[in-house]
Amino acid sequence: MPEVRVEEAQRFMQESLLAGGAPLTEAMAHADLLLHADVVGHYSHGMNRLELYINDMKSGVCNPHAEPIILKETAATAWVDGCDGLGATVGNFSMALAIKKAKECGVGWVAVKRCNHYGMAGYWALKAEKEGLIGMSFTNSSPILVPTRAKQGTLGTNPISMAAPATGGDSIVVDLATTTAAMGKVEMQIRKGEPLPEGWALGPDCEPTTDAQLAFDAGKLLPLGGLEKTNGYKGYCLSAMVEVLCSGLSGSRATHNVPQWSHSQTEPPNLGQCFVALNPECFAPGFGDRIADCLQHWRNLEPVDPSLPVLAPGDKERNNAKVTHARGTIKYPESQMTSAKRLADRIGIRPLEAI
Amino acid sequence: MPEVRVEEAQRFMQESLLAGGAPLTEAMAHADLLLHADVVGHYSHGMNRLELYINDMKSGVCNPHAEPIILKETAATAWVDGCDGLGATVGNFSMALAIKKAKECGVGWVAVKRCNHYGMAGYWALKAEKEGLIGMSFTNSSPILVPTRAKQGTLGTNPISMAAPATGGDSIVVDLATTTAAMGKVEMQIRKGEPLPEGWALGPDCEPTTDAQLAFDAGKLLPLGGLEKTNGYKGYCLSAMVEVLCSGLSGSRATHNVPQWSHSQTEPPNLGQCFVALNPECFAPGFGDRIADCLQHWRNLEPVDPSLPVLAPGDKERNNAKVTHARGTIKYPESQMTSAKRLADRIGIRPLEAI
Ligand SMILES: NC(=O)c1ccc[n+]([C@@H]2O[C@H](COP(=O)([O-])OP(=O)(O)OC[C@H]3O[C@@H](n4cnc5c(N)ncnc54)[C@H](O)[C@@H]3O)[C@@H](O)[C@H]2O)c1
Ligand SMILES: NC(=O)c1ccc[n+]([C@@H]2O[C@H](COP(=O)([O-])OP(=O)(O)OC[C@H]3O[C@@H](n4cnc5c(N)ncnc54)[C@H](O)[C@@H]3O)[C@@H](O)[C@H]2O)c1
Repeated sequence: MPEVRVEEAQRFMQESLLAGGAPLTEAMAHADLLLHADVVGHYSHGMNRLELYINDMKSGVCNPHAEPIILKETAATAWVDGCDGLGATVGNFSMALAIKKAKECGVGWVAVKRCNHYGMAGYWALKAEKEGLIGMSFTNSSPILVPTRAKQGTLGTNPISMAAPATGGDSIVVDLATTTAAMGKVEMQIRKGEPLPEGWALGPDCEPTTDAQLAFDAGKLLPLGGLEKTNGYKGYCLSAMVEVLCSGLSGSRATHNVPQWSHSQTEPPNLGQCFVALNPECFAPGFGDRIADCLQHWRNLEPVDPSLPVLAPGDKERNNAKVTHARGTIKYPESQMTSAKRLADRIGIRPLEAI
Repeated sequence: MPEVRVEEAQRFMQESLLAGGAPLTEAMAHADLLLHADVVGHYSHGMNRLELYINDMKSGVCNPHAEPIILKETAATAWVDGCDGLGATVGNFSMALAIKKAKECGVGWVAVKRCNHYGMAGYWALKAEKEGLIGMSFTNSSPILVPTRAKQGTLGTNPISMAAPATGGDSIVVDLATTTAAMGKVEMQIRKGEPLPEGWALGPDCEPTTDAQLAFDAGKLLPLGGLEKTNGYKGYCLSAMVEVLCSGLSGSRATHNVPQWSHSQTEPPNLGQCFVALNPECFAPGFGDRIADCLQHWRNLEPVDPSLPVLAPGDKERNNAKVTHARGTIKYPESQMTSAKRLADRIGIRPLEAI
């Protein structure tokens, strides 16, 4: 696979977003969000999505000059209008507000309407973690999760994220879609020519399928847990919980009214997002030590297969980031290079350079 | 199955708790908690556990006269010492505090150490829902969840609960253990003589098993999602998140240091619990209508099997409660009647009467 220096990937994404119409600060912020995903190995949420964001700016669905507005506020809460800004613009504004409130009164709870896609939910939780706080973030999305017993996708992959700091610079990072697997992982099975594990998806006939292509075409993902007999209604419940905290609180569109994200959006998606910061210093002293103890305990558990050590939540991404930074490059599939080339030509910037 | 009038079940549980040493107010409160579980059909968390609570009071592991203490407080947060009180004593104190704070400043976030078992997490979330707020509650428990790739149970069934009010007296109630299934459900499969679905548990050899008795003896539950290939690490991550919000914030024992709950505890479990209330009026107007719209949308989805309608989170329990109240009785298995008889003899109260 072609390798691209990390700085070059960053340069390319920044210039693309600038050419797409974003002011420099917002282009830099949004490129940072996408770069993080590629660095930690969640490629589906990195450069892979760059063109979607550019198209949304070009079509006016996303307003890169937007400045989010606080519509209502208490010491601990805020209701914000994202004004259809870029994911990073709205995320930075809202999480900074939650952090400020958490430092002042222990908790900051911010719900935002009129949002665009904001990439990895955990990126936002980590903003609070870096300030010594617990961070949480949630977003609704497009209707692709089929509730237990239903035929139709209605809720979203609606992710749950939480990051908490531990002594010694360590952390626990939970960041997961409430479907068993994201559509990006179904695509990966197609590319590998492998079937899906059971419990990932339904086919067009609303019966469970392990055929990756059928599942991709049908767009009917099962909630975390899979079918009802393996308690998949729990994933459905968790996705519904995220819906309450996102569209419920903010007054954005509910997921069942959000159009699928595509290259030709005609109106702003009006997603709902939620940003929470919580100050552990308001509770028992020694929080960081206790989290460090848990992390150590979990990592030291005896594994079933000695070649597969037990990971703590967040380790996979931290390990991937270490490898990326040591190598200094990100490996993109050939198809990513091709579409980056096409994008560069179209918007008139210097193409992405592999080493 | 023998039927017991709801009032009689309540009478029996109250008198048992009184005889066990609880003051009247606390005996009534704790009986209400257990009765709720039986009324909504979660029998594992109702009278089934009464004797465990009595034994904990008798042995001094639980102090029914305890009065929880606020150790640290801001407008939006509190750190509480549960002082080893009954689950209902600590839950009522802590959720009332969270509700008060949410009404004053939008959010109330209360973390509590030195707790005993508090039954259904959702019972506590519903306390806030009845006040027009969003309620959430979490607790850690004993080490029975085997983290992905590990051999040993280390985290708990650590439940996540959230209740939110909808217009017209309706509500959404999410209340679930972060394991695929609770141990109580494994026991039910044994009683029914049926195998477990895949993804529920490991056997004593740490390999997946569908043998209910083997799974019960081994005590190794898989996290929600099952094995790694069906993304069971997500359930593990969610259980870890609950751990952060419970033992992490409160300074209670981490689950890996909690002994299994048994009939002969020798020391207080020192569990950690977390109670959150959030006022939707601090956010976009029309919250109740939006939740009602979601509920209606989900319930009206076309089902795969016309005889199995799509449920919204909380519907199963609400429907069970309706049936119970219409019938006026709770159906207990014969074994429950026998152990109630034994308990009555032992503590010298009037036996539980079936109709
Ligand atoms: N913005 C949106 O609309 C949207 C929607 C869905 C998902 N997402 C994002 O997509 C990304 C990927 O989501 P996903 O559900 O595919 O993630 P995933 O299945 O890769 O799970 C990731 C989580 O599981 C942990 N994890 C993985 N393996 C583990 C193991 N063996 N032991 C312990 N923990 C382990 C990771 O550390 C992380 O916390 C997330 O960042 C999510 O926020 C965004
Ligand atoms: N105190 C503790 O230590 C502890 C530990 C674990 C569990 N618990 C409690 O045990 C109880 C049972 O937990 P569980 O995990 O076995 O619950 P469960 O598997 O029965 O799931 C319950 C949740 O799923 C919803 N649900 C069920 N079927 C549904 C469907 N078809 N569609 C949509 N939603 C559906 C219910 O309304 C509820 O919100 C809970 O009250 C929990 O809090 C307590």
